[in-house]
Amino acid sequence: MKTSPLLAALAAAVVSIPLGLAQEPAPADDWKPASSNQPGREFPKVNSERRVKFRIVAPGATNVGVTFRDSSPFTRGEDGAWYGHTRPLDEGFHYYLIQVDGAEVPDPNSRMFFGAQRWGSAVEIPAGDQDTYTLKHVPQGQLREVFFHSKSTDTMRRAFIYTPPGYDQNPDRRYPVLYLQHGWGENEYGWGVQGRAREIMDNLIAENKTRPFLIVMIYGMTNETRMGGLRDFDIGPFETVLVQELIPFVDAQFRTLADQPHRAMAGLSMGGMETRMVTLRNPGTFSHIGVFSGGSIALTNLTDVAAFKATNRLVFVSYGSRELGGDRPNRGGDPRANAEALKQAGINSHFYVSPDTAHEWQTWRRSLREFAPLLFQN
Amino acid sequence: MKTSPLLAALAAAVVSIPLGLAQEPAPADDWKPASSNQPGREFPKVNSERRVKFRIVAPGATNVGVTFRDSSPFTRGEDGAWYGHTRPLDEGFHYYLIQVDGAEVPDPNSRMFFGAQRWGSAVEIPAGDQDTYTLKHVPQGQLREVFFHSKSTDTMRRAFIYTPPGYDQNPDRRYPVLYLQHGWGENEYGWGVQGRAREIMDNLIAENKTRPFLIVMIYGMTNETRMGGLRDFDIGPFETVLVQELIPFVDAQFRTLADQPHRAMAGLSMGGMETRMVTLRNPGTFSHIGVFSGGSIALTNLTDVAAFKATNRLVFVSYGSRELGGDRPNRGGDPRANAEALKQAGINSHFYVSPDTAHEWQTWRRSLREFAPLLFQN
Repeated sequence: MKTSPLLAALAAAVVSIPLGLAQEPAPADDWKPASSNQPGREFPKVNSERRVKFRIVAPGATNVGVTFRDSSPFTRGEDGAWYGHTRPLDEGFHYYLIQVDGAEVPDPNSRMFFGAQRWGSAVEIPAGDQDTYTLKHVPQGQLREVFFHSKSTDTMRRAFIYTPPGYDQNPDRRYPVLYLQHGWGENEYGWGVQGRAREIMDNLIAENKTRPFLIVMIYGMTNETRMGGLRDFDIGPFETVLVQELIPFVDAQFRTLADQPHRAMAGLSMGGMETRMVTLRNPGTFSHIGVFSGGSIALTNLTDVAAFKATNRLVFVSYGSRELGGDRPNRGGDPRANAEALKQAGINSHFYVSPDTAHEWQTWRRSLREFAPLLFQN
Repeated sequence: MKTSPLLAALAAAVVSIPLGLAQEPAPADDWKPASSNQPGREFPKVNSERRVKFRIVAPGATNVGVTFRDSSPFTRGEDGAWYGHTRPLDEGFHYYLIQVDGAEVPDPNSRMFFGAQRWGSAVEIPAGDQDTYTLKHVPQGQLREVFFHSKSTDTMRRAFIYTPPGYDQNPDRRYPVLYLQHGWGENEYGWGVQGRAREIMDNLIAENKTRPFLIVMIYGMTNETRMGGLRDFDIGPFETVLVQELIPFVDAQFRTLADQPHRAMAGLSMGGMETRMVTLRNPGTFSHIGVFSGGSIALTNLTDVAAFKATNRLVFVSYGSRELGGDRPNRGGDPRANAEALKQAGINSHFYVSPDTAHEWQTWRRSLREFAPLLFQN
């Protein structure tokens, strides 16, 4: 690959002419392997324009592509493999699949993540603030996979539980707990894997920016096949698992501060909706509320503002900047205005906007990073 | 799918004639979704003959298949998807990929497992003894993902640590530790995911068949790209990570019995080779040895039999029955004869053969199940 950048640009331009992209300049030729790749895999690569370049080996195929919209046509390289690249993507984490003659399948070069109701591929685009969610040589918490028995569903259910650094070394210390939910089409792995909840917390704690607490993550539905839509979603069965079964299990098995002032719930998208429903229905259980890209809480949602003020310690609402404004509908009212109204009513209300991100994990990583330091402070 | 079994058998036979399989009877029509499938996916299915049937959606493809040898040709069904099935497979767990016009990619219907140097697909074939490695409503241990700093490699390294039921509830109790290694092309996820180490231990402990102990699992090489062969493998760098860095970390962070009599090492295949090398070089560190499908220990491997007898408490060697006999070379001598010679020399030597399994995870699940009850008994 000792072709000069100029020649490479020229070649790319020539190749692209018959494909109708003659006006598009060649992508910057500073591709680096994505951090989301499988061990030892060179592709996909990301360049400084935040484009992603793929290499797909499919000798007998006639049509190869990826699920990112507006990607370049895929063409065969000199080595016979197929190459193509995306438009510039937002910073952060994006799910995708590859397409081979009509089959939509995981990219064998990518690690696997659960989203869009499947274990599939994703690519990580470097971000200016990635240091906040990168594994570093700082005191480490643990991410524990545990199973608990749910009587209401008669199943053993998986929970991931983050315990902060020092948890095992301080056997007399008790900790607050955040119950943290994923979005629709995702599962209990989301926050611990692509959400980087562990790295975010370890790094915040290392900088003394947050109080240490446990984070508990479970699957946010009770349909064991993990399919189905939201239209007929009934919060009841999940609320039973969470409030009646999971919380007692966690309080029995871990050294928690097992009272309302030290218990928070947050979630993204569908998990934000669940958080609003469960916390408003259980004011004696949760004191801190986080809603990430999942609507907001209006004063009119509170049946008794004085009672809410008496028990609630925090309402945090966040969105990615690309989710706001324009012609997007604001179901439940403008979230910023709702947050401001709560604040005017004397509620500890915070509103955060993630710059230049959409309804994706970069918004939610940043939301957790901004939310955590506000928890259990009063 | 209300076709009668007879009609289905007839149709399958007719379809297969031009493909040269006219003599083969139709597979038993009692297909059930594999337990290794992604949530909600009907295919792959397994029948009572232990065949696996696949459904691959690839509308534009001309050639679809799987990496299992001797599989049926894949043909289009009435719904346009591609269907094919395998020969009868052994009980247990098998890695595979699908093939779409020359692309070898993960099956989007399968969960993903790391083996053969990749995150890819696998299928679980029901087994007569699967109850021993199935998640049950018994007291549960935890599988903890932790990171430790390795000075010799200047990396943060992942370890999975199994803590038995009751570990958190008995803060004054200390436990023995088994260091347990995966095989070549696999990684630190192997034993906790496809190896079912947690379920095996929880179930043994529930039946009071084993003493509770910790299991520690790390990646068995130090090449960060996780590629490369065994020909030039030098045990030194991994031995340094394991003995000089990991063991002190575990003994500092967990309530271990931090002495030689309470420390075991075992591994499968390459991990068995590593176990033989590391334990024989560090007799003051490990007292119990397990080698699963990874060679055996001959009397001639012991430079000082009397010294070995004085410090070793157990040598356990196992194989799958299909790995033994026939014209297979027995590098390092016949493992059964070697085990018998150790026993004759007064060493606590055990030899186990897994019935009707090959160099695969079912052999190693059973090996752990047989090995664990022998650990830390004397």
